[in-house]
Amino acid sequence: MDEAQTSDRSGPASERVKVRRSAARGRYELTDVLQILDAGLIAHVGVSTPDGPLVLPMAYGHDGELLYLHGAIANHLLGEGEGQEICATVTCVDGLVVARTPFHNSMNYRSVVVRGQAQRITDDERKLAALKLVTDHIAEIWDTGRQPSETDLRKTLVLQMPLTESSAKVRSGDPIDDPEDMSGPWWAGVVPITTRFGPPVVAADLTADSTPPEAVSSMSGRTPEERPRIKPTDA
Amino acid sequence: MDEAQTSDRSGPASERVKVRRSAARGRYELTDVLQILDAGLIAHVGVSTPDGPLVLPMAYGHDGELLYLHGAIANHLLGEGEGQEICATVTCVDGLVVARTPFHNSMNYRSVVVRGQAQRITDDERKLAALKLVTDHIAEIWDTGRQPSETDLRKTLVLQMPLTESSAKVRSGDPIDDPEDMSGPWWAGVVPITTRFGPPVVAADLTADSTPPEAVSSMSGRTPEERPRIKPTDA
Repeated sequence: MDEAQTSDRSGPASERVKVRRSAARGRYELTDVLQILDAGLIAHVGVSTPDGPLVLPMAYGHDGELLYLHGAIANHLLGEGEGQEICATVTCVDGLVVARTPFHNSMNYRSVVVRGQAQRITDDERKLAALKLVTDHIAEIWDTGRQPSETDLRKTLVLQMPLTESSAKVRSGDPIDDPEDMSGPWWAGVVPITTRFGPPVVAADLTADSTPPEAVSSMSGRTPEERPRIKPTDA
Repeated sequence: MDEAQTSDRSGPASERVKVRRSAARGRYELTDVLQILDAGLIAHVGVSTPDGPLVLPMAYGHDGELLYLHGAIANHLLGEGEGQEICATVTCVDGLVVARTPFHNSMNYRSVVVRGQAQRITDDERKLAALKLVTDHIAEIWDTGRQPSETDLRKTLVLQMPLTESSAKVRSGDPIDDPEDMSGPWWAGVVPITTRFGPPVVAADLTADSTPPEAVSSMSGRTPEERPRIKPTDA
C-alpha cells in the first residue's frame, strides 16, 4: 500500500484507463479506486473470446495492490490461455438524474475500471489468502465457516490482476441542463437509489444453532458502504 | 413480440450464449430474458479493443426484439468501426448466500447476457423511438420533459443489438452444502439485498413548479422491479 500510495497517480496510469467522456469526472488516485472497490459487491469482468467479448458477473476482493476474481468467468478465461487481457468493472448506482430534457438525463454513480493481464494463482497459500479476501470482501465470514479442504482448494480457480492500470469515474449531484432550458416549466432533480441488506434468513436445512455469526447479523439494515468487514484500505 | 415468443427458445440460441457453469440455472425463454432486462437499471457492455476488452456501464432499453444502448461506450465502439461484436450483461443481485463453508458461498442473482453485433441507429425517427425506450426504461419521463431538438439528436449516439442471442441465469434460495457438512456447527442462510428508490430531491437551480411528474414521485419507496413504466413485455 505505502509504495502504491506514494507513486504518482494524479493522472491516468496509461492511455487505456483514461476517462474519455466527461473527463472531469475521472479520478486516478488509488485511494479513490479502492474506496469504490470496497463499496461494490460484484465486478463485471470482460474477456475477449474467439466469439467476441464476453462479460460475466463475478465475486472479487483486493489487497490494495491486486484484484482477486473468483467465479464462472475463470473457466472461460483459462480455456483461452493464461495471461490474457481482461477488464474488471465495478459500478455502484447512487441515483437517477432527471434533467429538464431527456438528453441530459443521467445517473449518479461511482465506477472503477481495471485493465490488465489476469493470472491464475497456483500457489496454495496465496490462493487461500486470496479466497479469504474474496469471501471477507462481502462479509467477514471466512473464519466462522468450515475451513477449506485440499479438495475444495483444488476445485477452485482464482485469478489475480494488478490494480496498476485502474481508474475511477464519479458522477454526483444535480442534472446539468442547457442554459436556455433553465427557466422552462420542466422538473429537474435526483431520485436517490439505496441498496440495503435485510435480516438474515436461516437455511431450511440448518440443524446447528440458528444464530448467525456477528459478521452476518450486523449487516442487517446497512448499505454495502456501511457493511462491517476487513478493509484492506484501512490496514 | 409474437414472432419472437413463438420461436423455439427452450434451449440456447447459440453455443456462445449457453450457460456453462451450473447449467441448470440457465434460462433461454425470451420472457425470462425480458423480465430481467425490465428489472435492471444499467448494463455492463463489453467491447474488444486493440488494448484488450473494455467494459463500461450504460443505460439501455428494449422493445422485445432489440436492445438499445446509450452512453460512453458508444464512442469507443464506434471508434473501432461499425458492426462490431459486443456483449451486454445485466445483473440484479438479490442476496448473499452464506454456506457452511466459504467454498459454497454464493450470491442470489438474476443475470442476462446478450451477444451480437452492435449497430449505430442512423435514421432519426428510429433513433428518437430508441431514445424514448432508453429513457422510459428507467422512469416514464420522456413525455414530461423538454422534447429533443435536432441538435440534441445529432449529438447522440444510440446502438442497437438483436436479442436473438441472449440467455438468462438465475440463482435463488438456500446455500447448497456438502452432505458431510450438514450436521456441522456452522451457520447457513441468505442475507437478502434490496434496492429502493428514495424520495425525489429537487434540483437546486429549479425555478419551475417543484412538484415532480407522477412518474418520478411514484417511484419513491419502490424497488426497481416495482417501478412504474412502459413495459414492452406487457404490450
